Amino acid sequence: MLKTIIETIEPVSAAIRTAAQTHIDSLVKPPGSLGKLEEIAVQVAAISGTITPAPRKKCTIVMAADHGVVAEGIACAPQEVTAIQSINMLKNITGICVISAANGADLRVVDIGIKPTISHPGLIERKIRPGTANFAKEPAMERREAEQALLVGIEMVKSLVAEGYNLIGTGEMGIGNTSCSSAVYMAFTGAHADVAVGKGGGISDEALARKKQVISAALALHQPDPNDPLDVLAKVGGLDVAGMAGCFLGAAHCKVPVVIDGFISAAAALVAYRLNPLVKEYMIPSHLSAEPGYVHIMRELGLEPMLHLNMRLGEGSGCPLAFGIIDAALGMLTDMATFDEAMINGDYLVDIRS
Amino acid sequence: MLKTIIETIEPVSAAIRTAAQTHIDSLVKPPGSLGKLEEIAVQVAAISGTITPAPRKKCTIVMAADHGVVAEGIACAPQEVTAIQSINMLKNITGICVISAANGADLRVVDIGIKPTISHPGLIERKIRPGTANFAKEPAMERREAEQALLVGIEMVKSLVAEGYNLIGTGEMGIGNTSCSSAVYMAFTGAHADVAVGKGGGISDEALARKKQVISAALALHQPDPNDPLDVLAKVGGLDVAGMAGCFLGAAHCKVPVVIDGFISAAAALVAYRLNPLVKEYMIPSHLSAEPGYVHIMRELGLEPMLHLNMRLGEGSGCPLAFGIIDAALGMLTDMATFDEAMINGDYLVDIRS
Repeated sequence: MLKTIIETIEPVSAAIRTAAQTHIDSLVKPPGSLGKLEEIAVQVAAISGTITPAPRKKCTIVMAADHGVVAEGIACAPQEVTAIQSINMLKNITGICVISAANGADLRVVDIGIKPTISHPGLIERKIRPGTANFAKEPAMERREAEQALLVGIEMVKSLVAEGYNLIGTGEMGIGNTSCSSAVYMAFTGAHADVAVGKGGGISDEALARKKQVISAALALHQPDPNDPLDVLAKVGGLDVAGMAGCFLGAAHCKVPVVIDGFISAAAALVAYRLNPLVKEYMIPSHLSAEPGYVHIMRELGLEPMLHLNMRLGEGSGCPLAFGIIDAALGMLTDMATFDEAMINGDYLVDIRS
Repeated sequence: MLKTIIETIEPVSAAIRTAAQTHIDSLVKPPGSLGKLEEIAVQVAAISGTITPAPRKKCTIVMAADHGVVAEGIACAPQEVTAIQSINMLKNITGICVISAANGADLRVVDIGIKPTISHPGLIERKIRPGTANFAKEPAMERREAEQALLVGIEMVKSLVAEGYNLIGTGEMGIGNTSCSSAVYMAFTGAHADVAVGKGGGISDEALARKKQVISAALALHQPDPNDPLDVLAKVGGLDVAGMAGCFLGAAHCKVPVVIDGFISAAAALVAYRLNPLVKEYMIPSHLSAEPGYVHIMRELGLEPMLHLNMRLGEGSGCPLAFGIIDAALGMLTDMATFDEAMINGDYLVDIRS
């Protein structure tokens, strides 16, 4: 089933892309003067298969999971914080909650691998296993668990699309997940730890050095196959990253645009891209993460973030900010006048294209 | 009266700035991890004099005026477009209109110097004169006209604040106004035309060369005094730029935050800053304009834009996009939980600061 979904992802509509750009070029403004708003509008139109896409119903999916590698002392906070903050999201009091509220966006929190057993109203329980193993010593998970996590992400998007959502954000909560994200990026590209590993939520220089050493040693130990994304995920990935990669696949499968948050989300986007490069046509980047590996992954994907906010919170916090920009781009596409419509009768009847 | 307003502008509250930062540092996230959202929240709190600033009522003021220098053939569109597009804004069909709608923001259009006599429901008639003179040949306007235009901007903000608005954007409509904006920037800083002059709405390489030559020659002819912003405005400025500079002064006078749009708005911000550097404390930049002089003016002001959208429309179009980010920043300040509030009782009672 996973294989079928990955293999049947379709490119976005080239015909609609051209029609949308032609329409935008007829709007009452200098050609190209709305820059990325034009690119986003064209992309969302091509994804949606219409040059008059419906207003967006927006939701960020937060994949929450624990990471065995925190045993190596490379994270900024105790592991319990994954569970605490996942519940705080459902209480509507964390960063992603207030940013979502400001942008008319909803939130879903998925327990895809939180270590302790927890439950809370609203928590979507899809635990594959109680956290990954410590990849410094053994593979993070089994290959079939990585597959299951991808399917959880795909199913989450399918279920949101069935509810009427048509713009998806990808977020996470998982103490230790910048480590597995760096490991995934390094496994695919051979990048050195010095460009791929950062301080995450905030660690000392000493802990950063240890983090680099732990990740490099784990890659030497497990030798994940860069041509086999499931092998990479299973050996040095995370359940949150795998679930988010599934969200990207699911969005492409369902033909809805999907927003990349920061570094961890970008690593998940890279996994999905390596499973099928067509998924990139459905991705919209949001903010330039302060985590150093982020720009390198964007270069791999050939994407550029639009928000420069020096943020490094995670949780999906860049997604609702991008939703606001996307809403404006679609407003342009559907509500702005063309040159013909914008002409004024009487003394000032002038075609401003001339 | 103008002199009094300029001289009585006060700095924002240092005590509230500190209190807001202290509160933000107590919120349930790694310190500093919301980057510019934190800076914006602190700034708006310090401007408003409270760490719980009210939700924003948002409006962009569009100053519309004509420019005599278009006679030199340096603009991308015929002069009549200033009037046409000003009316189209009131018909709610231009770029700024659709972007404002997507962000819950209002719009005011001020005829501060449109050349033809026009009227339209909603058009605020404050015409100082029917367009500037061609500054290639004579001063753009009289010094007292520049003063009047500044006062129009100040009065516009005062009147919006009286209506309950507490977040102001600065926009413009004026064919030829990148030329006077480049001239203003060059007059203040001595910058060369090669770094200060761009293609505006879109002109040929040949027209760009002429535009540079016309502006450089005008500065040599009029020798505006870089220490006298009114002399600069009068000799090579524009009524729109002067009106927008007045909006920045008015916002500082009324203690409300004011957003910079693109290059023309930035030039106006520089005028206000040169009249009183304290005005900068009330300014929030929005997007990185594609017009090349923009980055140089931001460097003069010591500000950095947060949106990288490759936009060059003008009209104030970056302001409502920034409004959305500012709303999210204030949501963080007022609605996000502190570490103490975010602790979960029971098994997971952990202070995540430890």
